[in-house]
Amino acid sequence: MREFFHPDLDGIKVEQILYALSDPIRLTIVKRLYKSGEQSCAVFEDLGKKSNLSHHYRTLRECGLIHIRRDGRHSYMTLRQEEMNQRFSGLLLSIVKAK
Amino acid sequence: MREFFHPDLDGIKVEQILYALSDPIRLTIVKRLYKSGEQSCAVFEDLGKKSNLSHHYRTLRECGLIHIRRDGRHSYMTLRQEEMNQRFSGLLLSIVKAK
Repeated sequence: MREFFHPDLDGIKVEQILYALSDPIRLTIVKRLYKSGEQSCAVFEDLGKKSNLSHHYRTLRECGLIHIRRDGRHSYMTLRQEEMNQRFSGLLLSIVKAK
Repeated sequence: MREFFHPDLDGIKVEQILYALSDPIRLTIVKRLYKSGEQSCAVFEDLGKKSNLSHHYRTLRECGLIHIRRDGRHSYMTLRQEEMNQRFSGLLLSIVKAK
């Protein structure tokens, strides 16, 4: 099975990150990943329909915020927290801590 | 002449701020205000058509990022930097510093 494409963060613009996180569901996913580390995509099914969630995962992956790996029939997500912090210092932390 | 409405930041959600700043023109306006303090709206005319800019100013004002005051026929904008920092610690700085 084909692996997911993950962009190099050097070419990512901050506007893409801000757009991705301006959606409440995507922000919730990122906050949960920040708190819990790697998660199966299945744990986010309380947040919406599978097709909508797939779109959100893709948006988060394509802007460089998350990494998705396949394992058999399941997919697992992690935040690309360290790389994000190197690229946009302090940004992710200030967003996930915002109330 | 009617004064502009400015929201109380207590009710503002971080998603609204992120959405406002996910647009490259709005982000440029905010970066310039961060650097230069109060500016006449006229100084941003290099960024686009007047009607489009009015829309951007409104979006920035309604999410609480900027304050607009009228003075005769002109309008002047400032970033609500201190309030923003109290409400979303570190957020604005990490965004305007992002490259």
